[in-house]
This record gives sequence, structure tokens and C-alpha cells, in this order.
Amino acid sequence: MSTESGWVPPSTSLYTDHYELTMLQAALRSGAAHRRSVFEAFARRLPDGRRYGVVAGTGRVLEGIQNFTFPAAQLDFLARTNVVDSPTIDWLADFKFSGDIYGYAEGEAYFPYSPILIVEASFAEACVLETFILSALNHDSAIASAASRMTSAAGARPCIEMGSRRTQEESAVAAARAAVIAGFTSTSNLEAGFRYGIKTVGTAAHSFTLLHDSERAAFEAQLASLGKGTTLLVDTYDVENAVRTAVELAGPELGGVRLDSGDLVTQAQWVRKLLDDLGNHNTHITVTSDLDEFAIAALASAPVDSYGVGTELVTGSGAPTASMVYKLVSREDDNGNPVPVAKAAKNKVSVGGRKYALRRLNERGTATAEIIGIGHRPKDDGNDRPLIEQFMKNGELLPGWTGAEGVERAAERHHKSMAELPGTIRRLQRGEAVIPTEFEEFEEES
Amino acid sequence: MSTESGWVPPSTSLYTDHYELTMLQAALRSGAAHRRSVFEAFARRLPDGRRYGVVAGTGRVLEGIQNFTFPAAQLDFLARTNVVDSPTIDWLADFKFSGDIYGYAEGEAYFPYSPILIVEASFAEACVLETFILSALNHDSAIASAASRMTSAAGARPCIEMGSRRTQEESAVAAARAAVIAGFTSTSNLEAGFRYGIKTVGTAAHSFTLLHDSERAAFEAQLASLGKGTTLLVDTYDVENAVRTAVELAGPELGGVRLDSGDLVTQAQWVRKLLDDLGNHNTHITVTSDLDEFAIAALASAPVDSYGVGTELVTGSGAPTASMVYKLVSREDDNGNPVPVAKAAKNKVSVGGRKYALRRLNERGTATAEIIGIGHRPKDDGNDRPLIEQFMKNGELLPGWTGAEGVERAAERHHKSMAELPGTIRRLQRGEAVIPTEFEEFEEES
Repeated sequence: MSTESGWVPPSTSLYTDHYELTMLQAALRSGAAHRRSVFEAFARRLPDGRRYGVVAGTGRVLEGIQNFTFPAAQLDFLARTNVVDSPTIDWLADFKFSGDIYGYAEGEAYFPYSPILIVEASFAEACVLETFILSALNHDSAIASAASRMTSAAGARPCIEMGSRRTQEESAVAAARAAVIAGFTSTSNLEAGFRYGIKTVGTAAHSFTLLHDSERAAFEAQLASLGKGTTLLVDTYDVENAVRTAVELAGPELGGVRLDSGDLVTQAQWVRKLLDDLGNHNTHITVTSDLDEFAIAALASAPVDSYGVGTELVTGSGAPTASMVYKLVSREDDNGNPVPVAKAAKNKVSVGGRKYALRRLNERGTATAEIIGIGHRPKDDGNDRPLIEQFMKNGELLPGWTGAEGVERAAERHHKSMAELPGTIRRLQRGEAVIPTEFEEFEEES
Repeated sequence: MSTESGWVPPSTSLYTDHYELTMLQAALRSGAAHRRSVFEAFARRLPDGRRYGVVAGTGRVLEGIQNFTFPAAQLDFLARTNVVDSPTIDWLADFKFSGDIYGYAEGEAYFPYSPILIVEASFAEACVLETFILSALNHDSAIASAASRMTSAAGARPCIEMGSRRTQEESAVAAARAAVIAGFTSTSNLEAGFRYGIKTVGTAAHSFTLLHDSERAAFEAQLASLGKGTTLLVDTYDVENAVRTAVELAGPELGGVRLDSGDLVTQAQWVRKLLDDLGNHNTHITVTSDLDEFAIAALASAPVDSYGVGTELVTGSGAPTASMVYKLVSREDDNGNPVPVAKAAKNKVSVGGRKYALRRLNERGTATAEIIGIGHRPKDDGNDRPLIEQFMKNGELLPGWTGAEGVERAAERHHKSMAELPGTIRRLQRGEAVIPTEFEEFEEES
């Protein structure tokens, strides 16, 4: 299946832990596989020291479920290596997800125990999706949660995602997508542009300067081919000389210069002064070089026009995974009645029952609590905003959540969600969640 | 192109930063694109506090270069979004890498400035590969470097990779592969089994127990379907009851029990005693739950049979990326003579010139230094081991470095390389590289 963009997505069915399929086999044999079940993806805690998280990956989950089927080569592998028995192979050969999926819109803020994704299906169908769902949500939400702090610290200045080389090549695409959801304006990653219509940008590397016989020759080559609006990298040899050469060659229309090393605050200040003295008031300064949210905040008073963020973005700025789990919270008994279930093991508490969620807002529209109803919709006090959306119905994708449209909507959702949270989300120091999570218990709906 | 395993690998050409293609455009126009160049991938430092690194990702780089071509949909995207001009599109349409690639064998230990991958080609051909090469090496080497410390701490006990859900789904496959290179015995990741013939294993999740009407019913279902050799998860409710039920149902042939929460050291001790008291001397204990190399070391004296490692493995145990860079170190001048080049910018020093490398060994075969020759092979003092292998010649892949065979060879290389390093590699506390890197400067070969 090829998408609108021309991208041919892979089969996602073996992005799966071995035990999902052996549990399926055992449950098919015991008959319990067909029990209608509710699984829930949530995080017991926010990334270390963070005040909020940002949901991302949902669109990729929904896209991936379209390709969660078992082609012949994959079935051959499972049979050949005796991962599962032949009744299970037969079941997988016919697999197409037919359940319902609900959850938080992508781009939404989340807190401990927010029911981020809810899968209602037979145990068999919901179980096999576990690994893939968690991979996408845990990675993408970790990146979006870090990215959101960076765009918050950057204020009106654009952040550009350029971390592809610091993470696995497919993670790079997902990271670019998650960054844009959390307010980044563009990416260097071409595959992300291809798949999701995200704007791609670039400057030049030191190798381009070194390739030519002189920095001047390299700048001439870049300007001749890419025009005066291009951004020249000015720190290969001596920054002052490079800036002077750049202005001499391009004149006042020079688009920008990039600084990629040294003390960026001091350097940005004198480079700005030099550019202004040379008459280049409209030439922008882009800074790169190991930026994170703290470095961006430290550059707030420096005359910088945009931030290129790499390593710290794609590694989640110290929190590379979002610690979400996917738990069975309810399943039918033999009479078809839903039974809330939860594990009792120490230090890993879960809360059984189908969840509903509202964000409680005060009269000024500021969030004050995450209200989670167990087995029932929580009572809306008037200003509350319901958080659960439906994404799939009987296995059919509902419109608007995937592809380029999904990314755009998620970026809008992030923007609105941030505006609604208390101003303390902008504090970068370690702290607690900015709003508490409160449970409202009711009887399970029947 | 489908591989031996049945896997259909994706086109890798857009796993590329925007600027690689705009530099290509400018260099095609200036004529410098055709200058024969040498690029080198290396790390200026080891992951924070580490004593050695482990090279991984090379096999995936070589596999990916086979699919580094620009199909029509990708070219349409580049043209439609004006990433590059039409002469560049034409050049990309015909692209197939035709250069030579050398470097450290996958699985080999590396140190600061080790020339891990060397690409000799025109600037154009070597430049467009940069992002993809770094993505694969930086991710996979970070994982292998962490994994190696874990298998070192585990000694003779097997480590099982089970982190798929904590990282992006394709990173999960690459992480499983890197873990096995660094000594893990198996993975939960089915796609890694499918693509690379890696052994896959699994137990069961808490959801499987909760699905059934009782823990006993769940254990019965698992044993009936998967046999007595299966591993039962015993911490959903009460561990002691679960172990007793498991032994009652399966008898002395019960394969194993898994502990996934609580104080694993204490728990492993009394569960071992309980199993022995019940006559189950051959029932293994597998522990999971947020293990890293330090937790594994702390469990050394506990009666544990295998370690399941997840989050900390796939996130590189605090160092999720290997900080490798890919730098132009030499290129032709107008007369076709090689010119060593290096950037002079502050705090990012590179060393120009084609590199060669030996591991210096003492008379007992223990490594004492990493010797890097600049522009020339360093002088071998008799016991030294050459480190540079050739992987591609004129764009053709040399045999043995990719697929399942590549993974097996890399795991052997890792094993031998570890045996040769000083015993201090086993110290988990933060420290310096266990051997120094020494440069030998010569004139560039002509």
C-alpha cells in the first residue's frame, strides 16, 4: 500500500515481541483470546523532573495498524522458527485489526495516568498490537516532550530540527515529525518532508568549505548555486574573516550565517554587530552546536534569529523514552460482562477499568487538574474539556488523524494545549507535574 | 530488492539531511563535486565515562547503501519542493555508489579518533551518504557499547534483549542486532529474528494472567499450549503462591519463572530456595525490571539464571548516541594530488589525512595502545593487529559483512576484541579510555 505522498510503508506486524504471539497461541487454545478486552497506554510518571509530557506517535500508530498484516514471508519465518503453532499461523494470516481505538489527540499535554491510548478489541487483537503501539508512543512522546520545552524556551524564534545523524535513521524521521508537532518549524530530514509534507531546510557543512581551494571559493560556489538568500557556515577557519568575505561576496541580501562552535552568546553578539556595521541588518544568525532547552534559554538575550537543534532533541534531552505501558484494564467474563482488572505486584500499580478523561479548567480557562473517570465519564463542572477522541471504529480509521493533515492538526493541538496550562510549564528546572491527576471512581458501565 | 530472509528493505536515500543535497548541487555547479575525497567517521570522545566503545551499525550501513537509490516518487518530491535543481535531480536519478569503503570490523572495540569508517569516492558520492552512515553508526554503536558492559557484568549468564517497546520500532530491530553483536544471546524482537536470523524468545505478560479467571487458569493455559519448558511470570499477585501453583501444575520439568518487580536480589534468593524445596532444581529464574549493567553486577551473587534487559539497553544506558562525526579529511586538488584537510574551529578539532590503524599488543597479547597512522600505515612492532578492513570496492560489497553472517562474525569479533583488552574494561565506574590513542604522522601517500 502506497500513501498519498508516494511513501511505501513497511509491514509493521513483526515489530512485535515474541511473547505477544505465544500468549496469543495459548489464549487461542484456552479460548480466552476471544474475550472482549480494554487495553490502555499510560505513563505512571512523567519523564524525570518534567512538569508535563506531550503525546506524540498516535498518528504513526494508526498508520502502522493499516499495515499490521502478516505477509507470506513473515508467516514462513514464524512457522520455520516454531515461534507459534499452525492454528496461530492461520489466525495471523487472516489478521486485520477490527476493534475501536480512542485516546488523547496527538499534540495534547499528558500527565501521570492520563489514558493516552485505549484499545477495545478481543484480547487477541489488542495483544498483538502492544509492542508496536508502545514503540511509537514511547519514542515519539519522549521527543515531543523535550521539543516542547525547547520551543517554549525559544519563544517567537524558530527552532529547526537537525538531529537525524544522532539517532537511528527511522527514529530520525519520527523525531522530526514529533518535533514539528511540538512547535519546531522545520527539519533537515528529507524523508520527513517526503512522508509528512514537513518543510525541510539546510545550510552547508564544513566539508563543503574544505572541499574547495579556499573559503572564498566555497562561498562563491554556494552563492552561485543557491542564491544570496542562502545561509553560509562561517566557523570553519576564522569567523570574522568568514563574515567579512560572505558580506563582500553576497552584499546586503545575504540570507544568513551559521555559527556551529565556540561561545555562542558572545559570538552572536559581535557577529551581529559586525553584520550591522557592514550594512547587513537583514542577514540572520542561526546557531547550532549541542543546543538543548537550557542553552536556548541562555541565548534568549543574544541576537540570534533561529536555533538548529540536533542531539538533545533526538535523544529526548536526557529522557529518551516516555515510560508508557500498555495494560489490560478490563475484560469480559464468561457471561460477557466486563471485569476491571489490575496487577497487584509491588511498585508497579495499575488502575483497573475503562477510563475517561477531562482537563479541568478554571474560569480563566487555565488547567487546574487532570480528571480521570474510572468506568464512567467524569462529571463535567462546566468549563472542563473532554480529552478522549475516537481514532478507529471497527478497524476503520476515522479521518484527520494521519499523514500530513494529522501532523498539522497535532501541532495546532499542542499550541492550544500549552496555552491552557499554567505558566509554570515554562520553568525548566526539575519539578512536579503542573497539575494533579485526580481519579473519580464509579461502577463500570454495563 | 528482497533479501535472503524475505525482508524487503526500504529505499534509504532520503534518510538524508537537506544540506547534503544542496551542497551536492553547489559542488556539481562549481565542479568540485568530482574531486576524489576521503571521508572518515570517528568519535572525538567515548560515551560519557566509558572506557571503550564497540563498533556496530557497519553491516546495516553496507546493506543500506545497496538501497541508496532515488526512485521516481522520491525524485518527484525533491523536484516538487525545489530542494535541488534539475541537473542535480538528473545526477541523483543515476546514483549508485561506486566508491571504496574501509573501516573497523563490526564488533571491534574503538577509542577516541579510531577511524571507524573510511569512504573513498568523489565528494558528491561520499557527501550524500553522510547522514545515513552517521545515523546507523551513532545509534548502533551506542547500543553495542552499553550492551557490552552488560554482558561483561553478566559473565557466563545469558542476557536477553527485550527493550523493543521502549524505543522506536525500527531502532528496536537495530538495537536487538547491536545487542547480539555485543554478546546478548537472544532477543524478544521478531523482526530482528526475521531479518538477521537472531534467536527470539519470550515468556508471558501480566495481561495474560489477568485475562484468565485466575492465575491458575492462566498457568494451565500457558502450559497446555507451550509445554512445561515454558517460563511462567509469577509476580502478578503473590509470588510465593504463584511459584507453588506453577510447580503444582508443571512439576519438576517447569522451565522457568520470571520475576519482574520488587527487590530482585532478595526475591531471587527465596524463590530459588522455594523451588529447590519443592524439588524444582532445574527450573530457571529469569529477572527483568529496569536492569542495567550496575543492577546486573549487583545480582552476580544472587541465584539468577538469565537477565532480561529492556529500557537501559535500547537507550544506551545513559549514552543514547555515540557522538561519531563524518569528516572530509582529504581531497584532490586541481592536479589530482590528495590534500589533507581539517577544520580549525574551536573545540571541534579534526585531524586531516587518510588514516590507518593498528592495535598495539604486548607480548602477552594484551592491548596497550591504539596506533593511528596519518597518510601512511603505522609501523607494526611485531605483535600489532591491523584494524582496517575493506567492505566495498568500486561500489561492490565484499562478502561476509552483512545479513545473518555479518551479525555472527561481528559477535565473534566482539568476543575476541574484549579478550584482548586490559581487564580494567570490566570496571563499571566512570573512567578514561583503557588504552591511549597515539598518532603517527607521515607524509600523505602519493
